[in-house]
Amino acid sequence: MNNNDALKIRAEKVIPGGMYGHMSVYRGMPEGYPQYFRRAEGCRLWDVDGNEYIDFMCSYGPMIAGYGNHRIRAAADAQRNELDIADAPAPLIVDLAEKFVSQVSHAGWAIFAKNGNDATTVCNMVARAQTGKRKILVAEGAYHGAQPWAARRTKGTPAEDYVNFPTYQFNDIENLTVAAQAVAGDLAGIVVSGFKHDAGSEQELTDPDFACKVREICDAEGAALILDDVRAGLRLSLDASWTLHGVQPNLSAWGKCIANGEPLAAILGDDEYRDAARSIFVTGSFWYQAAPMAAALETLAILEEEDAPRTLERLGQQFRDGLYEQAQRHARPIVQSGPPQMPTVMFEDDVNFELGFRFCTNALRNGVYMHPWHNMFLSVAHTEQDIAQALEATNRAFKALS
Amino acid sequence: MNNNDALKIRAEKVIPGGMYGHMSVYRGMPEGYPQYFRRAEGCRLWDVDGNEYIDFMCSYGPMIAGYGNHRIRAAADAQRNELDIADAPAPLIVDLAEKFVSQVSHAGWAIFAKNGNDATTVCNMVARAQTGKRKILVAEGAYHGAQPWAARRTKGTPAEDYVNFPTYQFNDIENLTVAAQAVAGDLAGIVVSGFKHDAGSEQELTDPDFACKVREICDAEGAALILDDVRAGLRLSLDASWTLHGVQPNLSAWGKCIANGEPLAAILGDDEYRDAARSIFVTGSFWYQAAPMAAALETLAILEEEDAPRTLERLGQQFRDGLYEQAQRHARPIVQSGPPQMPTVMFEDDVNFELGFRFCTNALRNGVYMHPWHNMFLSVAHTEQDIAQALEATNRAFKALS
Repeated sequence: MNNNDALKIRAEKVIPGGMYGHMSVYRGMPEGYPQYFRRAEGCRLWDVDGNEYIDFMCSYGPMIAGYGNHRIRAAADAQRNELDIADAPAPLIVDLAEKFVSQVSHAGWAIFAKNGNDATTVCNMVARAQTGKRKILVAEGAYHGAQPWAARRTKGTPAEDYVNFPTYQFNDIENLTVAAQAVAGDLAGIVVSGFKHDAGSEQELTDPDFACKVREICDAEGAALILDDVRAGLRLSLDASWTLHGVQPNLSAWGKCIANGEPLAAILGDDEYRDAARSIFVTGSFWYQAAPMAAALETLAILEEEDAPRTLERLGQQFRDGLYEQAQRHARPIVQSGPPQMPTVMFEDDVNFELGFRFCTNALRNGVYMHPWHNMFLSVAHTEQDIAQALEATNRAFKALS
Repeated sequence: MNNNDALKIRAEKVIPGGMYGHMSVYRGMPEGYPQYFRRAEGCRLWDVDGNEYIDFMCSYGPMIAGYGNHRIRAAADAQRNELDIADAPAPLIVDLAEKFVSQVSHAGWAIFAKNGNDATTVCNMVARAQTGKRKILVAEGAYHGAQPWAARRTKGTPAEDYVNFPTYQFNDIENLTVAAQAVAGDLAGIVVSGFKHDAGSEQELTDPDFACKVREICDAEGAALILDDVRAGLRLSLDASWTLHGVQPNLSAWGKCIANGEPLAAILGDDEYRDAARSIFVTGSFWYQAAPMAAALETLAILEEEDAPRTLERLGQQFRDGLYEQAQRHARPIVQSGPPQMPTVMFEDDVNFELGFRFCTNALRNGVYMHPWHNMFLSVAHTEQDIAQALEATNRAFKALS
């Protein structure tokens, strides 16, 4: 028995279902995917049986500047040597708030937390405190975290948890208008994401007309435009992602990659919402932890130096072009969606991802970690050579489909 | 202007209210309390102006084995050198789940998260998934985190967020019985804490008869007994804290000190609730982070070696006895409540903590960081000499009251 299977047998006894959440391979991952990893460096992972992979998931987003990045690790360690947590924060919480406020054009202030879902939840609280209203519109199928209000997909959450969170269809102006009218007078906010990156389906870039309409409805209703940039943040733009469409949110939620994998989330807001943000009480034991803030300052510096959104776009396009050419050559038509920085690859007419699963298993066996039904992520630790090597592996994976 | 005030002026511009949450000195801390710290080591803190303090807050709980504990830091660093986060967890998630299951007698399984509030929320979800019922009874005045269901004290949370969380009076059998009857047939769980440690009031140890009654009602209704041991965990017992009263919870929530300040929370449950825990989807980008799990394994080993609950009790009693003697001698009667490991010190008939504030300011000026209206925390990094030195400072603080 290999190490991975031995660990899975032990885990079955002490972890419900063998593993929980999105990192469970039992939840819809193809055959042969490792449940445990031993080592990570740059854009590469090694599983507990010594197999090496070029990673296209980046820990589902958090890794953006390379596993074990020496500059980021050194910055975090230097802070740890002095102080990580205490009875009050370290001074660099102010440095980091200033950095975000200068980098993100809508932001006048920042609050830091741990989970991306902390950030989306605090945005809702600030919107409600500001407006005195209750309803927050969320896009059907969108993921904003696993807290009850955001988790209609799971058991254990009664309907009351969602009663104030009616849904609308992303990119559908008419549908959004009707949904907003239905709660007129009680609308506290509309939550959007950088683009439509729902798991299990083709991704959709944001229609700029839709983005303008969201802003227009929020302005008319006095509601907050809440941008959940937890997943797309810093990969599409170093500013809030909807600035690409000329639209500023009132509140934005950040997490995942902002500290390159150290646990940190951020809530940014404009000056109009400052008093509301001051009026609520939100906190957590680890929300002031200093080492992840030191990591974030270094991560933001690196992403600026590397012109990350353009670099990731170029690398993602190289991967996309290569996959397109291979799919054509092997007569296995694929659908590539989402921005190149966060590519999603599916096969045409692929019921239950049957072909996608086989392809991903083949890619895995050839040393590339891909995902069949979730958007993937590029990092600035990927190089053109890594992409070229990955494409050699995917070519073998296409071949093996026949 | 000193460094602390200069930082506060900068922070006013980029952090709502100058600081958020429980680490804001604007929220009810006495005059002169530092808003920022520069260095932490053992049981000592240094503020940004170089003042040194013996710390009795332990970061509001997380620090239990000393700031910068070398063994714990080495364990976390060794794990960071290999892998912190990846597309799936490191093997030690299984080691840590096994360790908790062997140490905590009710536990058959574990799920790991980041915030203590993640843990309390997941307990609710598991209880509801198991029972198919909606109502969770929570003690009036108790703090279970800042998520909306637990945060009735703050703005920005509409009443619907609490509609399924009716309250009862802790330690009041009759009141609990009535509260449970009012939701009979729809009761998913009752949330309790290790003892009544509400901020701003005298602490109350758990009445063992009350604990038995909670168990009895849960059994009769088929509801979950949910123990929130986030704050009291590992300081009263290395097992779940209500085992001290002979009562086992079905689900328990852990956080704060389990990794000595590295961000980690845990949900433990018994075998009856295993399938329900498997049936829900809960997760977070950083919930599988390996370095805090390495820190937790080392922390748990140290607390066992040091017989932490008894050691902290002895140190806390030394502090309590000294304060009692001083209060008597200076004719300033005090009320000391809660367990010695987590002492709360207030002055008799002290309206608005007026005397408490002056005393704590005096103690601070003499090098001791205390809190006037929140329970404090001992750590195994405190020594008898530290307590003796702290008592010299509190003696000067009592003197200065006259």
